[in-house]
Amino acid sequence: MTSDNRPRLALAMQEGLAGRLFDDEQLRRLGRAADLDPAPVLHEFSSPRAKASLARVDILVTGWGCPPLTAEVLARAPRLRAVVHAAGSVKHHVTAACWERGIAVSSAAAANAVPVAEYTVAMIVLANKRVLPLLARQASGHAQTDPPDSSVPVGNYRKQIGVVGASAVGRRVLALLRNYDVERVVADPYLTEAEAGTLGARLLGLDELVSTSDVVSLHAPSLPQTRHLMDARRLSSMRPGATLINTARGELVDTAALTAAVGSGQLYAVLDVTDPEPLPADSPLWNHPHVALTPHVAGSLGTELLRMGELAVGEVERLADSRPLNHPVSARLLERMA
Amino acid sequence: MTSDNRPRLALAMQEGLAGRLFDDEQLRRLGRAADLDPAPVLHEFSSPRAKASLARVDILVTGWGCPPLTAEVLARAPRLRAVVHAAGSVKHHVTAACWERGIAVSSAAAANAVPVAEYTVAMIVLANKRVLPLLARQASGHAQTDPPDSSVPVGNYRKQIGVVGASAVGRRVLALLRNYDVERVVADPYLTEAEAGTLGARLLGLDELVSTSDVVSLHAPSLPQTRHLMDARRLSSMRPGATLINTARGELVDTAALTAAVGSGQLYAVLDVTDPEPLPADSPLWNHPHVALTPHVAGSLGTELLRMGELAVGEVERLADSRPLNHPVSARLLERMA
Repeated sequence: MTSDNRPRLALAMQEGLAGRLFDDEQLRRLGRAADLDPAPVLHEFSSPRAKASLARVDILVTGWGCPPLTAEVLARAPRLRAVVHAAGSVKHHVTAACWERGIAVSSAAAANAVPVAEYTVAMIVLANKRVLPLLARQASGHAQTDPPDSSVPVGNYRKQIGVVGASAVGRRVLALLRNYDVERVVADPYLTEAEAGTLGARLLGLDELVSTSDVVSLHAPSLPQTRHLMDARRLSSMRPGATLINTARGELVDTAALTAAVGSGQLYAVLDVTDPEPLPADSPLWNHPHVALTPHVAGSLGTELLRMGELAVGEVERLADSRPLNHPVSARLLERMA
Repeated sequence: MTSDNRPRLALAMQEGLAGRLFDDEQLRRLGRAADLDPAPVLHEFSSPRAKASLARVDILVTGWGCPPLTAEVLARAPRLRAVVHAAGSVKHHVTAACWERGIAVSSAAAANAVPVAEYTVAMIVLANKRVLPLLARQASGHAQTDPPDSSVPVGNYRKQIGVVGASAVGRRVLALLRNYDVERVVADPYLTEAEAGTLGARLLGLDELVSTSDVVSLHAPSLPQTRHLMDARRLSSMRPGATLINTARGELVDTAALTAAVGSGQLYAVLDVTDPEPLPADSPLWNHPHVALTPHVAGSLGTELLRMGELAVGEVERLADSRPLNHPVSARLLERMA
């Protein structure tokens, strides 16, 4: 059923992933939109089979573990015109050579943002109700029935939630929070007050956001200028009893300063990412009652991979119909992205 | 500033509560709408001061710990025409004598439903991502970095969430879940298919809901006919890996049957209420990795009390303006309510 008009498509990602990204119906849609290359999923670009596949394909649908698309790899893929990434960041495999060739790039960052934002909002709610220490204490065998410490007002009414970074995740967090009776503020060097308003939030400078919010949630990219964004000064400026949530990248937080701030008893933290990751076994953060640690699970897990697959299938259908991509990534945009 | 046209109002609730239900601005609004009785807050109805206050008041604003408004108490309150309850259930203090007298009753159940629904949705998200066992394991000192068990698909995409009871809480849960990519189903003997549709959910029979949902969340009242609604048969019909959430009343679940079902390893549970409450210290539910136990904290805590106060202030303002109550309760409605 191959036709010269239809694009030819191959998948490139780590072994075992494709069956989790795409269900049967999504694979059928890919097959309707494009000719699936007989080499079903590429895990590397150096074998004869992979090279033969690269020589034929117009579209690569990529996922976690796709090797870098270097100039050398691209030289073997003369027809390649689009990379549709069924995951978030394209920084690991989309190289400068791709941009130079003018290859169209799409990312499923918007789909991967959804579970991260859902995790974040869940943790905001439970942190403000002081439920997280209760959950941790349960496992240590105590029949905990006391109400949470009432010296600091708990609850999710009239609290200020600070979102650091109007990224796809940050925007989604703000959107979900519209249904909650909380004051929403956002800090982002690229955002205007008007844009913040359309997100339902007030634009604040980072220092003011950090020192006035009940929850500070990080959704900024990891860049040289965002390393240790939460340093000792900013951490110590947080409100007593406030919670820091990091689902973005460990390097955004000075771990030593955070350990000290948490140790003072004034700060709570929810950490899905850390620096280093995982933390050393002797880090006091592991067992501190004010800290909830999860092992980098906020992003897409299980059925949530199908959401990224769904976005990628939609992009392939658009390419096949010569419609513009819904989620294009450019080299310039990438400078601000995770 | 007393005027004969303005209603006279007293507060009746446990000591120390009024200052948590109403902030200064809300107290000012109460004072603008009504003449606050000089006896500021009644904790009982038998002292001479309380009797004098009862003799004067048109409106009682009640809260947790308000003693029962018996026929004897009402006989001392000839002017009383409205009870505005700044909390959820009115069953503890509004007696048959109130209905017989035609006293208007308002409840802040809608406001108290908000934090319960927020807690529930947070737990749905974290349960589906299998984050709750990770949080519990942290406290036992293990540096848990393994991804969650992937034999059962985790995640919040394309999951079925079953809401048992279209109560104020159940409806709010369904409303919050509109922003999530989940299939919403509801079971309620008083709900029509059309009403379920307006809630964004499919109406199912209870047995079908329980046996097909990934999460079953209880939001039914505790009534003789709902006791042990989740019995051994229904619990064992749940999908392997499914989660039961109970934020309603402990008696809805057969605790012995739940303990057995959880022990089989097939079921997860999030319990904010239990039967008995708290559980005996030797209950296996305390430390089971599939169970998250919290000590009845889903309802209004801390600042969330102000939301109930806000609703009550609004009702007093309506009474003062001779407008109908926004949240009236009738004896008939009460039969189906918590």
